[in-house]
Amino acid sequence: MGAGIPAPAARVLIEAGRRMDARGWVPATAGNLSLRLGPGRIVITRSGVHKGFLTEDGLMLVDEAGAPADPGLRPSAETGLHCGIYRRFPEAGAVLHGHSVAATVLSRQAGAGIALAGYELLKAFPGLSTHRAAVQLPIFDNDQDIARLQQRVEALWALQPAPLPGYLIRGHGVYVWGRDMEEALLRLEALEFMLACELEERRVR
Amino acid sequence: MGAGIPAPAARVLIEAGRRMDARGWVPATAGNLSLRLGPGRIVITRSGVHKGFLTEDGLMLVDEAGAPADPGLRPSAETGLHCGIYRRFPEAGAVLHGHSVAATVLSRQAGAGIALAGYELLKAFPGLSTHRAAVQLPIFDNDQDIARLQQRVEALWALQPAPLPGYLIRGHGVYVWGRDMEEALLRLEALEFMLACELEERRVR
Amino acid sequence: MGAGIPAPAARVLIEAGRRMDARGWVPATAGNLSLRLGPGRIVITRSGVHKGFLTEDGLMLVDEAGAPADPGLRPSAETGLHCGIYRRFPEAGAVLHGHSVAATVLSRQAGAGIALAGYELLKAFPGLSTHRAAVQLPIFDNDQDIARLQQRVEALWALQPAPLPGYLIRGHGVYVWGRDMEEALLRLEALEFMLACELEERRVR
Amino acid sequence: MGAGIPAPAARVLIEAGRRMDARGWVPATAGNLSLRLGPGRIVITRSGVHKGFLTEDGLMLVDEAGAPADPGLRPSAETGLHCGIYRRFPEAGAVLHGHSVAATVLSRQAGAGIALAGYELLKAFPGLSTHRAAVQLPIFDNDQDIARLQQRVEALWALQPAPLPGYLIRGHGVYVWGRDMEEALLRLEALEFMLACELEERRVR
Repeated sequence: MGAGIPAPAARVLIEAGRRMDARGWVPATAGNLSLRLGPGRIVITRSGVHKGFLTEDGLMLVDEAGAPADPGLRPSAETGLHCGIYRRFPEAGAVLHGHSVAATVLSRQAGAGIALAGYELLKAFPGLSTHRAAVQLPIFDNDQDIARLQQRVEALWALQPAPLPGYLIRGHGVYVWGRDMEEALLRLEALEFMLACELEERRVR
Repeated sequence: MGAGIPAPAARVLIEAGRRMDARGWVPATAGNLSLRLGPGRIVITRSGVHKGFLTEDGLMLVDEAGAPADPGLRPSAETGLHCGIYRRFPEAGAVLHGHSVAATVLSRQAGAGIALAGYELLKAFPGLSTHRAAVQLPIFDNDQDIARLQQRVEALWALQPAPLPGYLIRGHGVYVWGRDMEEALLRLEALEFMLACELEERRVR
Repeated sequence: MGAGIPAPAARVLIEAGRRMDARGWVPATAGNLSLRLGPGRIVITRSGVHKGFLTEDGLMLVDEAGAPADPGLRPSAETGLHCGIYRRFPEAGAVLHGHSVAATVLSRQAGAGIALAGYELLKAFPGLSTHRAAVQLPIFDNDQDIARLQQRVEALWALQPAPLPGYLIRGHGVYVWGRDMEEALLRLEALEFMLACELEERRVR
Repeated sequence: MGAGIPAPAARVLIEAGRRMDARGWVPATAGNLSLRLGPGRIVITRSGVHKGFLTEDGLMLVDEAGAPADPGLRPSAETGLHCGIYRRFPEAGAVLHGHSVAATVLSRQAGAGIALAGYELLKAFPGLSTHRAAVQLPIFDNDQDIARLQQRVEALWALQPAPLPGYLIRGHGVYVWGRDMEEALLRLEALEFMLACELEERRVR
């Protein structure tokens, strides 16, 4: 259950889940959220619960390898993607996985990535101080073998000096992270806004 | 009225109705909801009320044949579709009928069904453990003769070893069920999300 | 101000305005709402206020000719359309004018009307007991001369044995009425739902 | 912090930010809001905060030249656009900058402006007493050099006897103003409604 999870951390996750639900980004049991309390102490949502109606019982503690603090609890398979982010980026303090219509539809139609250029909101991402920036949001093919999917993510990161703090999984949604939950939510909103614009642009053309 | 309906069951139906209304899935008096309390004891919404503003007075008790516990109350015609589900699937504990724009528009344009494939959310349905699954969501032509419509539904079920716990009625909306209201709502959200994606995909193409 | 307006009637109008605002149907100062308390006693929203944030001060009393009970208050020009409905239909107890994106876009593109056929929600309108019904929702050209616009509305009604309790004004929105506010809201939701579907269908084609 | 900012003014800005957030017009840290309390006393949102979750700490005081009352606080770069409006229009009491999907997508595709014609909501703008009016909503290319962007805005204003109280920045959003926050919000809603309609019309065609 929520044993060992500080109430303020639980509150942060519960509020973030409600926010995502209000936007329609966590339908059914889709999506997951996590927060790193300190080295080896990550609070993550359990699988099978609706993220818009989280309670402390829907949260559990794991370490960066994904091992649960309470051996009686089984973490969700996608915990592996959260942990991969925390291992690779020491500054990451919060990870969000959302499941929007725009991210799903665009990722099903696109190739290896989606180019985002000319948006003022690109400034929400590190190292992009102007709307003239252009980024390539990577898309990975969905895979029920999460370890294998994480290896493909790491293979791409190995090629990049400063990976973008976000990526898409085809037909599945977006992963995004930040130093804390506030920054992760800001980046999620910025990314979803640009994806919503991209979907509209593809319609109008 | 609400005579004989336990308050917790009424609460579950009222909350589910509000949730569906917030998503825009029960416009005007469209949609209906039910919950099986036990053999022969099904609580179902009465016709002519708005499902986003349900009160106990908007609920009534029927048995699996659709006969009202209070002979002075007339159940809605569509009660026959709920009861058909409860008769055929002993494990079904809750049935939801929603009326979204996506389900209406897609069902008006499609043939005998809509193929859903490659969605992570397919895992919300039983027996589908991977996004590689593909299902055919059946569509039945609308019919004001509910008994005749139910016969067509049963004729399809008879051909399938494990029918999908959901179907569409053309121009009318979606029916979906689960062991309890929580599972029914999760499946409804998963189905509506995939239908919203399908509608977007048809626009972009 | 609200002098002479019973608090329950004010409450009904305030709640209906909030509901319409939540759906995005009363942007800026668009839209208006009224309720007939009895012969010669109609409560109607004043012009220039946001209908999602109504207070009693935003309401006034007029008679069926549009004359204000308080001669110091000037009714909105569109009061003439509400009064025209109350004069023609003695059973009308509430009138709603909404201003949705779907109604605006469709009415700008269509001719003298929009055909609605095959929708289960058509049953929300009187005399239509099956989804096989088809109705023609009339569209009138917008006109800042409300008396002249009302004359055109009446000219159409004169040709019809049982006019549909609703019509569109081009680029301006929908008018709909019912015996009471509950029925008017149900019909507004049914109409807006079908217009949203029609707009989607025109995109997909 | 909020030192020197009257609580009612803070409340007006906080409520306006929530309203804009509920409509999806201030994603991430996008958008900004200001209110002129009197000559040389403008309350404006600080950069880097989410405008849907404003507190008094997210507000600061500047004068019409953009100089902060508290020299220890650095105003957002876009303060220059707010101040430019207050300098040019003595009657302006509130300025809103929103960041909607419709404004972003349309401004990325259009040229020097968007023609708005035939909308009843045009009456929300000064000098337009009929829906027969037509206006050209100016679009300026985005520029991280705000002083240079403001010069281009002023160059256009210099050519017009009565500039429209609003404009677009390409890929960035809308600026709109009014005598007070209520009028600014009404105009923002009117403008966003017409942009939403324009985006729909471009899809349907």
